[in-house]
Amino acid sequence: MPISITTIPTAADIRESHALIQDLIHRTPVMTCESIDAIAGAQCFFKCENFQKIGAFKMRGAANAARRLTPDQMTKGITTHSSGNHAQAIARAAKVLGIQATIVMPENSPAVKIAATRGYGANVVLCGPRPIDREEMLEKVVAETGATFVHPFDNYNVIAGQATAALELIEDSPALDAIISPIGGGGLMSGTALATHYFSPGTEIWGAEPEEVNDAYLSFTSGERQVNKTTNTIADGLKTSLSEKTFEIISTHLKGVLTVSEEEILVALRLVWERMKIVIEPSCAVPLAAVLKNPELFQGKKVGIILTGGNVDIALAQG
Amino acid sequence: MPISITTIPTAADIRESHALIQDLIHRTPVMTCESIDAIAGAQCFFKCENFQKIGAFKMRGAANAARRLTPDQMTKGITTHSSGNHAQAIARAAKVLGIQATIVMPENSPAVKIAATRGYGANVVLCGPRPIDREEMLEKVVAETGATFVHPFDNYNVIAGQATAALELIEDSPALDAIISPIGGGGLMSGTALATHYFSPGTEIWGAEPEEVNDAYLSFTSGERQVNKTTNTIADGLKTSLSEKTFEIISTHLKGVLTVSEEEILVALRLVWERMKIVIEPSCAVPLAAVLKNPELFQGKKVGIILTGGNVDIALAQG
Repeated sequence: MPISITTIPTAADIRESHALIQDLIHRTPVMTCESIDAIAGAQCFFKCENFQKIGAFKMRGAANAARRLTPDQMTKGITTHSSGNHAQAIARAAKVLGIQATIVMPENSPAVKIAATRGYGANVVLCGPRPIDREEMLEKVVAETGATFVHPFDNYNVIAGQATAALELIEDSPALDAIISPIGGGGLMSGTALATHYFSPGTEIWGAEPEEVNDAYLSFTSGERQVNKTTNTIADGLKTSLSEKTFEIISTHLKGVLTVSEEEILVALRLVWERMKIVIEPSCAVPLAAVLKNPELFQGKKVGIILTGGNVDIALAQG
Repeated sequence: MPISITTIPTAADIRESHALIQDLIHRTPVMTCESIDAIAGAQCFFKCENFQKIGAFKMRGAANAARRLTPDQMTKGITTHSSGNHAQAIARAAKVLGIQATIVMPENSPAVKIAATRGYGANVVLCGPRPIDREEMLEKVVAETGATFVHPFDNYNVIAGQATAALELIEDSPALDAIISPIGGGGLMSGTALATHYFSPGTEIWGAEPEEVNDAYLSFTSGERQVNKTTNTIADGLKTSLSEKTFEIISTHLKGVLTVSEEEILVALRLVWERMKIVIEPSCAVPLAAVLKNPELFQGKKVGIILTGGNVDIALAQG
């Protein structure tokens, strides 16, 4: 029986995680786009996690955490705090596996997200808007139910699950010179870094984040974990700061962290919508924006880019 | 040497066209979406021509017409009138094949479309906004240059080219109970009808169009070719009325023409954006809207739907 991963995931852990979550995820396509390549001066290989179940890579980590519960833990349920994709990912994994999920969400979450999470059969418990509110509520849920808490990123099962996106990207692309992921809390970035380190050791590993929430950049360059001072970015998946576990992996394996402006994110976002004809959320555009901004690093290279999700509210532009 | 198709395309004509245009088009994927299937109560197979070169199926017909020019015709060039995807398709086909293209566009066309067409190296000639203006200008271009005029849909080379989308859909899907295409001028619909008739004779062939521009519905039901009274639809690819050639094929092969409201188009458009995470233009949403509106026709069936293109201006929704 698979057991919970309690140290930095090994190559074998990531391979096993990939096998464990097969029936809970899509193997998403790797897309290319000639006109973006021409603009970037690089060959870009986009791993399309916007086509993933629940519309985001978060399905991978949540599925891996749920699959590694013991029978006793499964009886007691699974819980997390999230107002976003992780909530829906945990709710869906729990539903498919027949586990009760309890999701702590801030009372100011969009009604549509609360409804979507409930739609997967999860028990949604509302809390106040501050971080301390959700932590207290989560502790209460755990105390009352004995449910297993799956942190959105400071969790090695989640990190090993997110690593499977880069594993597939590496398997489905020619030899890549670089792989670049966006950095929020660092779960995807950590998984990407480990998978690349193990399965494509000659490939450079880069992170990208908005200038406005540059905690990973500051942490990486100073060697000490920093937190974001603002959350003033359109890339709403990247407002979170690194955790202890993700900072350790990121500071060990990354070549560097690149930052981009809000304007640069919007340009890259529009490029993907217009040229690739796929819907991505703003967070996904951050790595492409970094590639476009730093031709000296990527010109003429084969670059893997993880498009993290497609859960965004779009409209027809007003003419 | 391939020659111009001058009668209703045969199965062999369509097969030959497919071979002729291979290096000018993408073989686009057929996508499925569990959550749309659940809503529709049908299994839908979406042929994603939004991922086609120039972002629309029009590339197929233009490529086929250009590939069938004689050496003498190639010397004299190729011309058409269009402010949309057909203009860019002809311009790109001409560029790749080393032919001079002259595109007649109304002077009130969006500047970005004129620039895009010029971007392919085409000679853009502006004309007045009325249909008669563009016809006069086109005659002038033909008289001066001897260029071959490729009508956007009333042309058997174009129809045979558009037919290759359904040919691929049929090859890449399980046996379909029905195939449904949107109807504007009827080039895609005619090609779809012929390909389905030849290559999947057990499959019902349906057309779909907006209520606001229901010339095909009126023509099909009355047996006489009608024209649209208004152009009041968001599905701007479908404002055109049928031509003689397309009306003949459509009235012979279709099971029926279904019409949908503007509101129904918007619901279907949003479903594809939100659930499939792909960018499509409003015209593409018309067949899905018709499937959703007519469960008695499609419930429990396997339905092929041609998504015609993705050239639309989208924005982040205002929260």
